Amino acid sequence: MPDSVYKIIELVGSSTESWEKAAQNAISRASETLHELRIGEVCSMDLTIKDGKIETYRTKLKVSFKLEGHH
Amino acid sequence: MPDSVYKIIELVGSSTESWEKAAQNAISRASETLHELRIGEVCSMDLTIKDGKIETYRTKLKVSFKLEGHH
Amino acid sequence: MPDSVYKIIELVGSSTESWEKAAQNAISRASETLHELRIGEVCSMDLTIKDGKIETYRTKLKVSFKLEGHH
Amino acid sequence: MPDSVYKIIELVGSSTESWEKAAQNAISRASETLHELRIGEVCSMDLTIKDGKIETYRTKLKVSFKLEGHH
Amino acid sequence: MPDSVYKIIELVGSSTESWEKAAQNAISRASETLHELRIGEVCSMDLTIKDGKIETYRTKLKVSFKLEGHH
Amino acid sequence: MPDSVYKIIELVGSSTESWEKAAQNAISRASETLHELRIGEVCSMDLTIKDGKIETYRTKLKVSFKLEGHH
Amino acid sequence: MPDSVYKIIELVGSSTESWEKAAQNAISRASETLHELRIGEVCSMDLTIKDGKIETYRTKLKVSFKLEGHH
Amino acid sequence: MPDSVYKIIELVGSSTESWEKAAQNAISRASETLHELRIGEVCSMDLTIKDGKIETYRTKLKVSFKLEGHH
Amino acid sequence: MPDSVYKIIELVGSSTESWEKAAQNAISRASETLHELRIGEVCSMDLTIKDGKIETYRTKLKVSFKLEGHH
Amino acid sequence: MPDSVYKIIELVGSSTESWEKAAQNAISRASETLHELRIGEVCSMDLTIKDGKIETYRTKLKVSFKLEGHH
Amino acid sequence: MPDSVYKIIELVGSSTESWEKAAQNAISRASETLHELRIGEVCSMDLTIKDGKIETYRTKLKVSFKLEGHH
Amino acid sequence: MPDSVYKIIELVGSSTESWEKAAQNAISRASETLHELRIGEVCSMDLTIKDGKIETYRTKLKVSFKLEGHH
Repeated sequence: MPDSVYKIIELVGSSTESWEKAAQNAISRASETLHELRIGEVCSMDLTIKDGKIETYRTKLKVSFKLEGHH
Repeated sequence: MPDSVYKIIELVGSSTESWEKAAQNAISRASETLHELRIGEVCSMDLTIKDGKIETYRTKLKVSFKLEGHH
Repeated sequence: MPDSVYKIIELVGSSTESWEKAAQNAISRASETLHELRIGEVCSMDLTIKDGKIETYRTKLKVSFKLEGHH
Repeated sequence: MPDSVYKIIELVGSSTESWEKAAQNAISRASETLHELRIGEVCSMDLTIKDGKIETYRTKLKVSFKLEGHH
Repeated sequence: MPDSVYKIIELVGSSTESWEKAAQNAISRASETLHELRIGEVCSMDLTIKDGKIETYRTKLKVSFKLEGHH
Repeated sequence: MPDSVYKIIELVGSSTESWEKAAQNAISRASETLHELRIGEVCSMDLTIKDGKIETYRTKLKVSFKLEGHH
Repeated sequence: MPDSVYKIIELVGSSTESWEKAAQNAISRASETLHELRIGEVCSMDLTIKDGKIETYRTKLKVSFKLEGHH
Repeated sequence: MPDSVYKIIELVGSSTESWEKAAQNAISRASETLHELRIGEVCSMDLTIKDGKIETYRTKLKVSFKLEGHH
Repeated sequence: MPDSVYKIIELVGSSTESWEKAAQNAISRASETLHELRIGEVCSMDLTIKDGKIETYRTKLKVSFKLEGHH
Repeated sequence: MPDSVYKIIELVGSSTESWEKAAQNAISRASETLHELRIGEVCSMDLTIKDGKIETYRTKLKVSFKLEGHH
Repeated sequence: MPDSVYKIIELVGSSTESWEKAAQNAISRASETLHELRIGEVCSMDLTIKDGKIETYRTKLKVSFKLEGHH
Repeated sequence: MPDSVYKIIELVGSSTESWEKAAQNAISRASETLHELRIGEVCSMDLTIKDGKIETYRTKLKVSFKLEGHH
């Protein structure tokens, strides 16, 4: 790990099932273009409500990935 | 949405199953008297323990709803 | 002021013009039912965007008012 | 406790004596209309000053109470 | 909204007029390359001073936009 | 409860299933040596990623337990 | 800028017009005695209310200025 | 209050008796040179310990006072 | 003090009298097993309520003490 | 500076030597593709440990750079 | 890593040289009794001053280590 | 220490070498006019960048010193 550099991006995933699934959706989408995703930290969680029921769970995540060097 | 006004209240729901279900319980209870609940933001989560097992999951939420105008 | 008690409520006002006007809208609406509003503290500000332009400014406020005693 | 729901309100009490008495004043006033108050968390404390002496101690509290169900 | 994924970026806009105009400048610039900007949350505001007068207002924003899926 | 004293320790549990199960794992492990665990407050949640999928959910908790007196 | 030292002071300005004008008032007042004010960071904003209308906007700022050396 | 400007300073008072007395000590000392002290906000409280007993209570305060204009 | 190492533990004391006494109770209990307690920082304060009266004051503290070296 | 717009990205650099060197590594890597980097704010610092020794220092930074306009 | 449990402790190390060395001192001391220390997160840094010179650098760290199971 | 009062001021020091040296520079400058500086707490650290290299390290500190009484 010495001297490696990581970038952190912030994502919001949503799901009708759970905050875990919302996080997984965000990560699946990010993995389409970014490789080597390593760790996701939960920043916040919220939910939308419709007719007194939870409609969607949303998880805001900071996800880090290694930057390949050009050296 | 222009010029509408929302009020925010803070609730704690609990459940023996999950933090998602604890949130749903808080929202179900609030919906009995408040309509047009829109969004719930998780403030914090905790749990109570009995005999080394989680007894209840608790989710503290800020829930917003539209104030009907008197104009 | 000695021994008086205040309650604090949380409101979100919105406006197409400015965060000041959004705050005023929230306070005007609250004043319809609550008297003796005294101070409003800004919790957060955000905005909604449409076609690359700001559509509404929103100001989240904590507003305090004196509770009349029943003594 | 399973599946019960609590509401949280924010109050400011004041006293010429101490922050403890300021908290008690807020709770006494709230107990006139709300039953089953359970826990009060201190959010912040401040004081007003007159002629170089503390005039009033003020304690801002979040107080929780159980919502009776309509089920 | 179910299962959609949003990305959040952080921008600082500046203006000689107001924090509202500073926010609009940041959003106008971001809209040149990003579509479907939805919400901007104010992170912080500051200002630069010259000869005892405010020279520029600056608004730091987190702006979210929907990621198009590749599915 | 009057005059009792509690100690608070910080734990991280992990699970391949959910943040609830990660919390339960931390508490099960702590219960092997500590009795009278009472309440666990979630400090933060994160996750590790492998090949674009969530590998482990991790829940960081502050757990309190009563100190037996020596009086 | 190398090796220069700045001091930071905290001010609250008020205005009947806007939070921008409240900040400008604080800075104008500070400039009467302090030169080389550089940057002001907004710490918080609040407002006072009278008869359901905003009476004054208040902006709390941290303002930095260079300390002249005695070397 | 319109257009007045306040300065905020940070003080730590200490006392062998209580956090209230520690705050009063800080304010008494500040009043020797500053007039029109208005409000003190508690930033933090701590204490020093000697031989298992509390030796001093310390209260850190932000105290505001009006700046007289030179206009 | 050079090169010494301190450990910090988190405690909650309670008292029917005051937050000062609650802190003292936590420290008295900790001093039974730990020597050289030095400083206690207040993390938070809360209270429990019974029949509209404060039943117990609780003070959460971080307490530091010197680790004796094995060198 | 009037009306210019900045983007902020978050990076983690690491080094076996110091947090300063860790920050420099992150900035060197970012400078390969981004020009006009201006300011880096430290968000957090941590370290990894191996056999009781610090293996790597890591500095998490928010780095800002000017967005070139397309006007 | 699945289902492993970590404990987190808080330490303050000090050094006359640097915050890096202060952190190393805390970790060296903790390693005498705890094995498998993994990660240390900086909570805060401060310093003591004597005769206008920095006497000691102090680094407050949260250090995590794996709990061996008893299963 | 009983009943003594401390004032806290906020400073930013800078250095081309390290955050330690930046802190030392701020303290050296403050010591020219203030005696009995005791403790400095790091509030934040940042850096300026030129041509992809760190130009200056900056350390923001809160420094406390004892107020001599006039009693």
